[in-house]
Amino acid sequence: MHIYAELLTIGDEILYGQTLDTNSHWMSGQLDELGIKVIRKTTVGDVKSEMMQAFEEAESRAHITLITGGLGPTSDDLTKPLLAEYFNSGMSMDEEALAEVSHYFESRGRQLTELNRLQAMLPEKCTKITNRNGTAPGMWFERNGKIFVSMPGVPHEMRIMMEESVLPKIREYFHLPVIAHKMIKTAGIGESFLADKIKDWEDRLPENIKLAYLPSPGQVKLRLTAAGTNKDALREALEAETEKLLPLAHPYVFGYGEETLETVVGKILKEKGLTLSTAESCTGGNIAHLITTVPGSSAYFNGSIVAYQNEIKEKILGVKKSTLETHGAVSEATIIEMAEGVRKVLGTDIGVATSGIAGPDGGSAEKPVGTVWIALSDGERTTTRHFLMGKNREWNIQLSSYAVLNMIQRFLRGTWS
Amino acid sequence: MHIYAELLTIGDEILYGQTLDTNSHWMSGQLDELGIKVIRKTTVGDVKSEMMQAFEEAESRAHITLITGGLGPTSDDLTKPLLAEYFNSGMSMDEEALAEVSHYFESRGRQLTELNRLQAMLPEKCTKITNRNGTAPGMWFERNGKIFVSMPGVPHEMRIMMEESVLPKIREYFHLPVIAHKMIKTAGIGESFLADKIKDWEDRLPENIKLAYLPSPGQVKLRLTAAGTNKDALREALEAETEKLLPLAHPYVFGYGEETLETVVGKILKEKGLTLSTAESCTGGNIAHLITTVPGSSAYFNGSIVAYQNEIKEKILGVKKSTLETHGAVSEATIIEMAEGVRKVLGTDIGVATSGIAGPDGGSAEKPVGTVWIALSDGERTTTRHFLMGKNREWNIQLSSYAVLNMIQRFLRGTWS
Repeated sequence: MHIYAELLTIGDEILYGQTLDTNSHWMSGQLDELGIKVIRKTTVGDVKSEMMQAFEEAESRAHITLITGGLGPTSDDLTKPLLAEYFNSGMSMDEEALAEVSHYFESRGRQLTELNRLQAMLPEKCTKITNRNGTAPGMWFERNGKIFVSMPGVPHEMRIMMEESVLPKIREYFHLPVIAHKMIKTAGIGESFLADKIKDWEDRLPENIKLAYLPSPGQVKLRLTAAGTNKDALREALEAETEKLLPLAHPYVFGYGEETLETVVGKILKEKGLTLSTAESCTGGNIAHLITTVPGSSAYFNGSIVAYQNEIKEKILGVKKSTLETHGAVSEATIIEMAEGVRKVLGTDIGVATSGIAGPDGGSAEKPVGTVWIALSDGERTTTRHFLMGKNREWNIQLSSYAVLNMIQRFLRGTWS
Repeated sequence: MHIYAELLTIGDEILYGQTLDTNSHWMSGQLDELGIKVIRKTTVGDVKSEMMQAFEEAESRAHITLITGGLGPTSDDLTKPLLAEYFNSGMSMDEEALAEVSHYFESRGRQLTELNRLQAMLPEKCTKITNRNGTAPGMWFERNGKIFVSMPGVPHEMRIMMEESVLPKIREYFHLPVIAHKMIKTAGIGESFLADKIKDWEDRLPENIKLAYLPSPGQVKLRLTAAGTNKDALREALEAETEKLLPLAHPYVFGYGEETLETVVGKILKEKGLTLSTAESCTGGNIAHLITTVPGSSAYFNGSIVAYQNEIKEKILGVKKSTLETHGAVSEATIIEMAEGVRKVLGTDIGVATSGIAGPDGGSAEKPVGTVWIALSDGERTTTRHFLMGKNREWNIQLSSYAVLNMIQRFLRGTWS
């Protein structure tokens, strides 16, 4: 039997285009991982008739209705009183909720207001869900084998409630099969090419293991989902399938789970005790930015020279004037000297470089917009790659940056040729 | 009379959490600007019964139903046949649509397939809407004074259809009042402080002019919307109100409309014929990245030294060893030498610098996580600012970057003290 869910978002600010709803996107992914089918998402405003109608419609169609928003302490926020009315429930002070909201204020050195005290008044027919990151508790209702859950609209309050309380309770309530996941991350190959390479493996996956392709700029994530009764057995089955996949998807797999190209590059550099520097022309500092978003990156990243003028390529990176004059800034000869130069001048084990025409203007017949050269030097050898990307500046900057990060991880792992 | 709209998004990929729906957010903002009230957003899958039910519900409640998605050439894509059925309409080949899709393929040197030829088959009861960025035409239906519009789910195809065809047709069909907008952008002041400063002006706005606050990290946008009968008169009224606002919001207004801190900094530097360089520690290259997302930035941006190690601050930027030893890297003394140093070494008129503790680790009692120093030097004087931000690394990097961009524009305009 399929379990159906609907997501209901409450809030004028979403209908009027002031706030982008990212909650329902994240919740969809979480439910999908449990094998629950989301059949509808609805957003309505802070309006009684709209909300009551949406409750009824959702309850008529879905086993699970997850509601976000409308839980603030002000009179605009209608979700709590309307759910009490919808479930014919009186309200009373929940002593545990009151202790939690009092603690929330005390621990921040703030005074509990009467308005916030009222947040601990809950419909008697609901089960309270603790809000660890805020003041409005969540509410869990059950009726005729269906459930209604109300959560705050603030993303980090909702997420921790879902992960710690709501998803485990849903699994238990509906006796859902045990689920295990494995996220395998690839870079440097398009979705259709990858699908072609791993087709035989995909066709032979056991019935209880499903595969999803999740593409993003320069990357494709493979999500394996196994359903069964024993978590350890499922995890073993996923590991076994991953082992079979790896030779087919070689050398495109760079990491698993929450890993990114930035964190993987950092991890390998730390393991090997190596340091990195970047010389950036067309990427304009974005590679350094991506690397330094990782906490602790100062342990392996020395810095970057963003050389947006030829004089800087000459003066700081030591690119020869004759090289620039003969080959131009966007050339293999220049990119080699940039990578070797930054490695020396910033005193690192590895130096990488980018030079290209990000666009939208500045191309020529010989070097059209989207022409990009990248290079990596370790002092013994320098390797280069040439790309012809598109005409979108932002896109070219991102793709070039990820191409360099992928080159670094493959070089360090010995899978770059 | 209020005009009500509903937005209907079709697609399994959105329900399953693979694709984030940004279309409906953008469309909400566009309709809100026309004074149309969006009362509901719904997402359903590529399922006949779900879609037909959603059509009925939307038509029963709203004057305008805007549908995106489900228009591809494959059999999963049900929007077109179901709308034909819903409006009891036969299908026939639209010769103009066929010419457009043929032209789309020819101009890209590709062969028109039979599947793509079928995209020009349209319900006879609809008016075709040209798709300038893709192959699936949009469809406009009218019944009993209500309209249904179907558009592709690909964002850049949908947006150009909305802007060029759908929004003008809606305005005409519903005889909507003429609307004019003015977006005023501020930086460096929080929403509530700004609201306090401009309260009297806001209270005295004419009845036909509405104000909305749209906050984002480090910035608050003020959107003025005027409704009336004559566009020129409305524009004049908005200009007059803006003139009254400026002294109250001084010096926080940095631009208008589509302008960003990055584009404004670029515009002023170009006007004044000045060049810029950055020395980045805690921002890790993000300021250079933001500046170089602007096309043509090489005309005024020379480059950046991302100095993630003290040795580089010394060796490349010329920060004195004694300064680093006495005051540390995160100090006013060091940030001054960084800004002056990068200006000299990269040969620019203006040099800016950042140094701070982005977190989540690395703080001390004296210099907690979130401590950030920024500086700007023009060769004659060097100005600094100190911030204590939060514990979130990503947030600290973004806020520091925008603080520097705002310092540059205010310095160049003479509103920095």
